[in-house]
Amino acid sequence: MRRYLKRLLIGKPLKSSEEGNQQLSKFKALALLSSDALSSVAYGTEQIVTVLVGFSAMAIWYSLPIALLVLVLLASITISYRQIIHAYPKGGGAYVVSSKNLGKNAGLISGGSLLIDYMLTVAVSVSAGTEALISAVPSLYGHQVGISVVIIILVMAMNLRGLRESASFLTVPVYLFVVMIILMLLVGGYNIMTGQVPYHATAAVGTAVPGITMALLLKAFSSGSSSLTGVEAISNAVPFFKKPHAKNAAATLTIMATLLAIFFGGITFLNYWYGIVPTEKVTVLSQIAQTTFGQGILYYIFQFSTVLILVLAANTGFSAFPILAFNLAKDKFMPHLYMDKGDRLGYSNGIITLAAGSIILTFIFNGTTSLLIPLYAVGVFIPFTLSQTGMIVKWYHDRPKGWIMKAFYNFLGAFISLSILLILFRYRLSTVWPFFIIMPVMYIIFYKINDHYNKVAEQLRLTEEAEIHDFDGSTVIVLVSSVTHVTTGAINYARSIGDYVIAMHVSFDTNPEKEHETEREFKERFPGVRFVDLHSSYRSIASPVVKFTDVIAKNAAARNFTTTVLVPQFLPKKPWQNILHNQTSLRLRSVLNSRENIIVATYNYHLKK
Amino acid sequence: MRRYLKRLLIGKPLKSSEEGNQQLSKFKALALLSSDALSSVAYGTEQIVTVLVGFSAMAIWYSLPIALLVLVLLASITISYRQIIHAYPKGGGAYVVSSKNLGKNAGLISGGSLLIDYMLTVAVSVSAGTEALISAVPSLYGHQVGISVVIIILVMAMNLRGLRESASFLTVPVYLFVVMIILMLLVGGYNIMTGQVPYHATAAVGTAVPGITMALLLKAFSSGSSSLTGVEAISNAVPFFKKPHAKNAAATLTIMATLLAIFFGGITFLNYWYGIVPTEKVTVLSQIAQTTFGQGILYYIFQFSTVLILVLAANTGFSAFPILAFNLAKDKFMPHLYMDKGDRLGYSNGIITLAAGSIILTFIFNGTTSLLIPLYAVGVFIPFTLSQTGMIVKWYHDRPKGWIMKAFYNFLGAFISLSILLILFRYRLSTVWPFFIIMPVMYIIFYKINDHYNKVAEQLRLTEEAEIHDFDGSTVIVLVSSVTHVTTGAINYARSIGDYVIAMHVSFDTNPEKEHETEREFKERFPGVRFVDLHSSYRSIASPVVKFTDVIAKNAAARNFTTTVLVPQFLPKKPWQNILHNQTSLRLRSVLNSRENIIVATYNYHLKK
Repeated sequence: MRRYLKRLLIGKPLKSSEEGNQQLSKFKALALLSSDALSSVAYGTEQIVTVLVGFSAMAIWYSLPIALLVLVLLASITISYRQIIHAYPKGGGAYVVSSKNLGKNAGLISGGSLLIDYMLTVAVSVSAGTEALISAVPSLYGHQVGISVVIIILVMAMNLRGLRESASFLTVPVYLFVVMIILMLLVGGYNIMTGQVPYHATAAVGTAVPGITMALLLKAFSSGSSSLTGVEAISNAVPFFKKPHAKNAAATLTIMATLLAIFFGGITFLNYWYGIVPTEKVTVLSQIAQTTFGQGILYYIFQFSTVLILVLAANTGFSAFPILAFNLAKDKFMPHLYMDKGDRLGYSNGIITLAAGSIILTFIFNGTTSLLIPLYAVGVFIPFTLSQTGMIVKWYHDRPKGWIMKAFYNFLGAFISLSILLILFRYRLSTVWPFFIIMPVMYIIFYKINDHYNKVAEQLRLTEEAEIHDFDGSTVIVLVSSVTHVTTGAINYARSIGDYVIAMHVSFDTNPEKEHETEREFKERFPGVRFVDLHSSYRSIASPVVKFTDVIAKNAAARNFTTTVLVPQFLPKKPWQNILHNQTSLRLRSVLNSRENIIVATYNYHLKK
Repeated sequence: MRRYLKRLLIGKPLKSSEEGNQQLSKFKALALLSSDALSSVAYGTEQIVTVLVGFSAMAIWYSLPIALLVLVLLASITISYRQIIHAYPKGGGAYVVSSKNLGKNAGLISGGSLLIDYMLTVAVSVSAGTEALISAVPSLYGHQVGISVVIIILVMAMNLRGLRESASFLTVPVYLFVVMIILMLLVGGYNIMTGQVPYHATAAVGTAVPGITMALLLKAFSSGSSSLTGVEAISNAVPFFKKPHAKNAAATLTIMATLLAIFFGGITFLNYWYGIVPTEKVTVLSQIAQTTFGQGILYYIFQFSTVLILVLAANTGFSAFPILAFNLAKDKFMPHLYMDKGDRLGYSNGIITLAAGSIILTFIFNGTTSLLIPLYAVGVFIPFTLSQTGMIVKWYHDRPKGWIMKAFYNFLGAFISLSILLILFRYRLSTVWPFFIIMPVMYIIFYKINDHYNKVAEQLRLTEEAEIHDFDGSTVIVLVSSVTHVTTGAINYARSIGDYVIAMHVSFDTNPEKEHETEREFKERFPGVRFVDLHSSYRSIASPVVKFTDVIAKNAAARNFTTTVLVPQFLPKKPWQNILHNQTSLRLRSVLNSRENIIVATYNYHLKK
């Protein structure tokens, strides 16, 4: 039943050798890896305008120079990531680049930030998607968190089914969004030029806004930089591209950055021209689309494609997080379970962890995009800064032809990223402070795990001297609660492996007659087996059993015998029935496992009905 | 660490023989068992008035005749429960009385209703307590659910510490509440008689209220009957009283009923006289106390004592639910784990289940008392009706002296209880409908469990023919993932219990060199042990292991050998490190457990650092 459900949701298992087929063409890669970046235009402009309008509606015109600055930033980051792709064709995520060039610590800070950041990617994209949905269907207002959680779970299920199958149908909504945005920009531009939409700006470019401060403009800029999130996704996934990996990846990155620049610039301009002010229930982009298309079918297709691409942006996180977790696990900084591939060749544990983390974030921030954005930006620009700095170090170290120019581009990227970080820390501390708690904690956990794995490897390594040891026999203790078919089976088995078999029974104060009954019955049936009755004044049987077993184990060791404790239990036919049984044997096994030199075995009696 | 925390919260374990000391005097029993009933006055009047005011403020005077009817009901229920106490001195809960006299099905319906009802007791009492708290400290408004959940968890922890310790300090707040209510009634009465508080009723008794319907009055009555919840608690707990159990219990019941009658009548009268109308943020009782005492220290002590007694009312549920669950488990209708006594002699599993259930109810109903009341009343009056009916049957069956009179009192109780049920089903269906889903489900679960336990007992019972079987030897399969200290220990152990030892290794496509390395290394170290390399095209090692083991087990059986699979694993020093290891061996053990004739043993290698 559970198995069937799993098959239905996740699909049949794939062979390890089917792995190779999971390669992406540029066309598909753009859909799978750029939705995060492209979808940022759904909230990027709004983040800038919201900060400005918080001061005065007249300040909206500042969004134009701010957007220009964001585009400069985009250009510099694109150039430096192209360089990273070529330098690390096996996948140059910030974690790899920082680790290799700046050392393990920088790598771990990058890696930790990115893990959090991918959770924020999912939370932000899904929240923004939900807001876009609610803009078009206002009756859903009030159910943001519920809708977001359902979407995250659906995306998770999709990813557990495997990467490639997703990619095939994912191309449609991405290209639909690209077409719809371009259409909107064309229609909007045409309307403006033909004068059908009169100039409506709240204040013209250059209007003096009394009292406006540099701090406010920097805040707006830092919020706007959220449009750049997701640009790094391609550099993490170079090996998934068709060959030549690096060339295809770099080309895809350039296409994506160009589209992003046009979309972001165009939307910000239309917003300025239309004089649109953010409201709580309708997103800025939705207002722009409505003004451009009217409340017709085109508007609804537009909103629908916005929702879809934001959901796919969340999907980008699901491609990137498991790979990063795999890399961290491979380097022994995260549990090995993140290296296990699921039935469909996806890293299931990473996928599930990401979904859980982003659902928690959605609850904490109540599914509100603007509350998540500053934290999101911090998570993005820490690894940006570190990986660009790492590249400078690399260029200096390798000094290939033209390295000074290359280093300069990476320097520009690092400098701008760092500046944004400083702006965020200075002006957004009230929302980004959790990073200063989470990061050190993750850093400590990384090192604890690493230390543990190293110690384990060291302890398990075989030394040269031979360790084969011949025991002279084995003692087997069988736990007996009452004399049934289970006991018979367990005693028979124990006699097959043991040279000396002891039946052990724990009796309580509560029912003395029944206790003697058990002893009598056992001795009658198994006259050759030693029967020991332990008495307990408490209700727990664990502690007398452990004490007695310790004594037996000591004696056995003295005789060069091994000690086995056999716990008999019956297995019910249906899994739910387990709750009705076996609590005691479960507890006993877990206590006995703490004893060295005692081997715990379970005798299962299978019930037929 | 976990152990230490448990000791700190729950206390040191008690011996089974310390059980006997947990006996209650009348004084303590009143505190422990009557807080539920007495605390009902904190919301009883309000429930009546809320329904009436929903129609018209002028209708408030109807609360007086309705209250009178509730008092008649109280008298009849008290008399019949006194009879139950004497007839069932070993504890005559509705479950026991209904089962014995009306048969198993009636008993299960009673029992099921009561299980839900105790959860509602906790949820209602704690919600009402929170509302009382917020009435006095308005700044807490908006945090109802959070406060309620914290209170439930605290009460749960108290109960896990054991019954008697609680009782000692529980007497104080109950008697504080009793004193405060009496003080309020006296001050209120004095003020009224001396004319210091003028007559303020919204409309005098007898005023015609145009359009008022019988349905409305019945609704108000059914809500007011919630004041009677908790009266049955004493009859469930007769054996916990000092000897003579029944006499002391009956006396306590009478005292409690008398106090309840005076309190409920007095409060309803004061409410009428003061002309108080319910509001959302301040409870009716709080308004009455404020009018009586003024906004001074007495008022705050009063509110404080109300909060405390309501918390203790929740505590009543924690005394009753685990006992009922124990009785149902003893009769094999609930899992046996409800019969396990915890370290402090409380039925820990029952206590935890109750807390979990009531927390869920608090979330569902958003911590609002009035939404919980109708469901609560249904849960109370179903077992009331059934146990009174059961008593009639008993009297008719036994026919002791004066049985007709006794039967009449129980008939009266049964009749009124049934009437209230019918009113609730007729006029409150929109809130009580979940009962019609929950009850059949519970009923089915009870029978499923019962059926299962009976089948198990039947299957385990030993037949007469001797079943001792002598095996000729044992085959042991050791799982080997790589050659380490763990492997050596496991192989040595396997050779001590097995006549034929096989090492089994699963290899994958991914790293062929490493695979051969393992085989080479193993054969070099253990030349005498057969090494089998299984190849898997998937990532799962479970399925090849199970297939191979099945073949070996079949061969072993043919040779009259037993088959053991030894799963080696290493145990980390700290529990948290388990997440870093052993996922594979866990999965393997759970799959292998499904095989009959295969015994699974675990070889634990304990890591030192």
